Amino acid sequence: MRALVQADGRMLAPWDQQDAWVRPSGAPATVRSRRIRPNLTNSVGLASPTSAHPLAEPALSVMLQQRGEEIEAAFASVEPMLRRLAPQQFEGHFPQHAQRELARLGISIEAGELASSWSKPLDLGLIHARCVIATFCNLVEREFDRTHALLEEGEDAESVIRRFGFHGIDITSCADGRLGGVVDFILRVPPAIVVAHSSYGGAMFDVETALHQWEALELRRWRLGLPNDATEPTRYLKIGVYHFSSVDPRHQGCTAHDSDEMRAASALLSRLEEFAGAIQSTHGDATGVATLLIGVDTDTDAIRVHIPDAAGVVDVARFASSGILYGATAGLERDAAKAVIRAAVAECAGVDANDEATEGMRWLCGYLLKNNISQVDAVRASSDGRYSDSGHAEKLIVIGDPIDDVQLRNLAFHVRMDTVEQGAQDLDIGLAILAKTHAPPGLAVPLLVHVVYDERIPGARGRAMARACRLGAAVKNRYGATATAAGLVVQEVVRAEGRSCMELVDPRPKEARG
Amino acid sequence: MRALVQADGRMLAPWDQQDAWVRPSGAPATVRSRRIRPNLTNSVGLASPTSAHPLAEPALSVMLQQRGEEIEAAFASVEPMLRRLAPQQFEGHFPQHAQRELARLGISIEAGELASSWSKPLDLGLIHARCVIATFCNLVEREFDRTHALLEEGEDAESVIRRFGFHGIDITSCADGRLGGVVDFILRVPPAIVVAHSSYGGAMFDVETALHQWEALELRRWRLGLPNDATEPTRYLKIGVYHFSSVDPRHQGCTAHDSDEMRAASALLSRLEEFAGAIQSTHGDATGVATLLIGVDTDTDAIRVHIPDAAGVVDVARFASSGILYGATAGLERDAAKAVIRAAVAECAGVDANDEATEGMRWLCGYLLKNNISQVDAVRASSDGRYSDSGHAEKLIVIGDPIDDVQLRNLAFHVRMDTVEQGAQDLDIGLAILAKTHAPPGLAVPLLVHVVYDERIPGARGRAMARACRLGAAVKNRYGATATAAGLVVQEVVRAEGRSCMELVDPRPKEARG
Repeated sequence: MRALVQADGRMLAPWDQQDAWVRPSGAPATVRSRRIRPNLTNSVGLASPTSAHPLAEPALSVMLQQRGEEIEAAFASVEPMLRRLAPQQFEGHFPQHAQRELARLGISIEAGELASSWSKPLDLGLIHARCVIATFCNLVEREFDRTHALLEEGEDAESVIRRFGFHGIDITSCADGRLGGVVDFILRVPPAIVVAHSSYGGAMFDVETALHQWEALELRRWRLGLPNDATEPTRYLKIGVYHFSSVDPRHQGCTAHDSDEMRAASALLSRLEEFAGAIQSTHGDATGVATLLIGVDTDTDAIRVHIPDAAGVVDVARFASSGILYGATAGLERDAAKAVIRAAVAECAGVDANDEATEGMRWLCGYLLKNNISQVDAVRASSDGRYSDSGHAEKLIVIGDPIDDVQLRNLAFHVRMDTVEQGAQDLDIGLAILAKTHAPPGLAVPLLVHVVYDERIPGARGRAMARACRLGAAVKNRYGATATAAGLVVQEVVRAEGRSCMELVDPRPKEARG
Repeated sequence: MRALVQADGRMLAPWDQQDAWVRPSGAPATVRSRRIRPNLTNSVGLASPTSAHPLAEPALSVMLQQRGEEIEAAFASVEPMLRRLAPQQFEGHFPQHAQRELARLGISIEAGELASSWSKPLDLGLIHARCVIATFCNLVEREFDRTHALLEEGEDAESVIRRFGFHGIDITSCADGRLGGVVDFILRVPPAIVVAHSSYGGAMFDVETALHQWEALELRRWRLGLPNDATEPTRYLKIGVYHFSSVDPRHQGCTAHDSDEMRAASALLSRLEEFAGAIQSTHGDATGVATLLIGVDTDTDAIRVHIPDAAGVVDVARFASSGILYGATAGLERDAAKAVIRAAVAECAGVDANDEATEGMRWLCGYLLKNNISQVDAVRASSDGRYSDSGHAEKLIVIGDPIDDVQLRNLAFHVRMDTVEQGAQDLDIGLAILAKTHAPPGLAVPLLVHVVYDERIPGARGRAMARACRLGAAVKNRYGATATAAGLVVQEVVRAEGRSCMELVDPRPKEARG
């Protein structure tokens, strides 16, 4: 598979390939038919749109699209409102008027903070950032229904995945906002089975933190039989998600890995191997843990699934591509389409389609590919094969604990961190990205510090408050004054796990303008 | 027991009391005999010295004393060496000569760094700090034998404590250097049974970190049967150690709690209760966990053991005191002395001496009191009843992961931390304490960043290196230049768990002089 790697060490995008994955010699090239070859006249997009793909999930896609539009609309109403208010700021009773107007968007700012004078007009770039943060928090509190499990022959997704042999899925993705819909949109995995989802720059998660997460869950299996008893031979699946850009691979890939998809994939694979190795060495064996490497093309939402072979070995250059499988299955009946995916997965793994040892993982990979094909179809339907914006357009930065309640591509640059000291490298990247889009129109960068606590644990809320304040202070300390020309608005919130209510630590967020 | 609390909310020292612990009404006042009453004419010291206390452990005490002297001697040789070298620094070949001389103390500094000129003499205050750090590291690498288990009727301590119903002891103490000998000297618990020992300012440990530690150990019991099988009904014991000063309670107590022993004890008790509550709420029940509150008088090394009552309730104002029990048992045969302790413990717990439900915890408390009495005896023998120095005399600060290999009172101010962002409050206290003793003689404060890694975990060493560097940089960032008038020398080391070799991250430590 050397051909995949170019002279400069980068990988070619899958549609530039003769072959989307390694075939064991002699194995039938199930996906190498004419049908799956890319439309080379269209050098970037996938095969030309068809009206109804057998694996599309129109009902779910429409629902997701509507939610996406609702989220976009909420943010889109902020700027016109502020534009309208700006010229009125010197009129009498403006603060009360503006307060009422903003309240119509669900945004609460004290009247005193909306007062200006001829010599000191309002800094609407800072107020914009506060409105963005408030809008985001309102969306979280709206509690979108995320239980849209794709039914698999009438069985709910949780049972299906349990039947594949997994009791929990832990997803680590890149902090990049273009992966903002990775769980709900791209992988379409129901939240009930996702035991953890965190994001880091370049998806470079901390092995020791991941080990703790696994230990806590595994202990609950032993002591409480939750989510299932430890005697059941199911596994914990840690999925690592890197990303690349098919439209502009050298500039719109992963910033943390210098837009080098080969490096992004290799580094994440090593981290996943370190995680499995950590469990192996500290708890005797790692048979209860599986890892899976997935790449996302942020221009089409198509995925590469790096299916492990019979020995469990993963190769960054060997994967099944949903983009190619989308074309390969376009003209088929639904069952035939699924059979093509199953065959492609087995071929990529280098095993027989009836191989029992690899069955669960192969089923899961097929499930993810099939799910993702419906997302690829949705992106094609709404965006002519690929997103019109290749680059960054995040609305805010979120640090601290993950927020999955509101998911959308390019919504937030989202970094899990306990301290800025540990997360500074990722945060630097995020601030540089948002400053680039926010500084030119004079907007401050909105940054939400989000800390989750377990309300059953005594004192946890107070400690969460303290952690949120500490994070906020560290951000201000590192980036205050001169660090961001765009200005920065930091708001700390805490939230009880499983609840939607965001509790403001201090109702007046910290503002800094360079 | 209200009488224990004075008008200003502080507690009286135990020897000022009529009664050392609450007696349930009607229970025999086992320790209220004439014998145990303090010698009130000597307002500070314990009862007048006796030549041979029945619970003294002369062999162990001599061994510990010799080790302490060896440690002191290693540090004591630094200053005379530098004093001798100082006037020679302008002579020819001085750097090579000084290098050879320092090598005799096991200290390695490059010749280039020992070069001076008439206009720029050596900063020997900074070099002193480097020598102190090197001396400390050498002592760690010397691998003192810490397996001096006190034999209990021929049974080793590990088995004894297991028989008491505990499979592991986790000790959290204050970062204060005067508790530097808490495991080996004061509690005399063998390292084999101490699964964790960390110190924080005011012993205020992080509940979530402590929860992770317990989860990891508990999971090993379930999966690997280590240290014993989860089916065995033993418990995990978390001991919290606060401290106070009997000589100068208002000034030489715990800095983190403003020398208020009542506050120190109450805050730590709350934290211990939060820890048990966290396990209860996240893992269904906390029956597998016990907590114990202990106070140390840093002037005599005597302890207060706050023995839980039959309902498991601990009261900061109810405890058994080894100082009083020392006097109460002084004239007895060894077996009779042990019987007095057992009776005192049962009385403090408010239960019958044969109560089965509280037996394990009472035995453990008795064991700790008995052990500590031999330390009280050793302190009396060598220091006339109490230490001559009530205050701080730490030689260096250690941050990062704990070091138990070299233990001694007033050796190091020792704070466990993952990041300076989280540990800054504690570190501020430590630096203020050491600056007070170091600035007047022109000495820089030596600070060792110590990070432990599990060499079985892939990549762990590299991550430990990165963490050590990050900690060192954060210290420099926070305290560089002006923060410490005394100057600061920061050296980062990493170490494989269970090994003695300290690996320098950068052989040339960072130096900063305000």
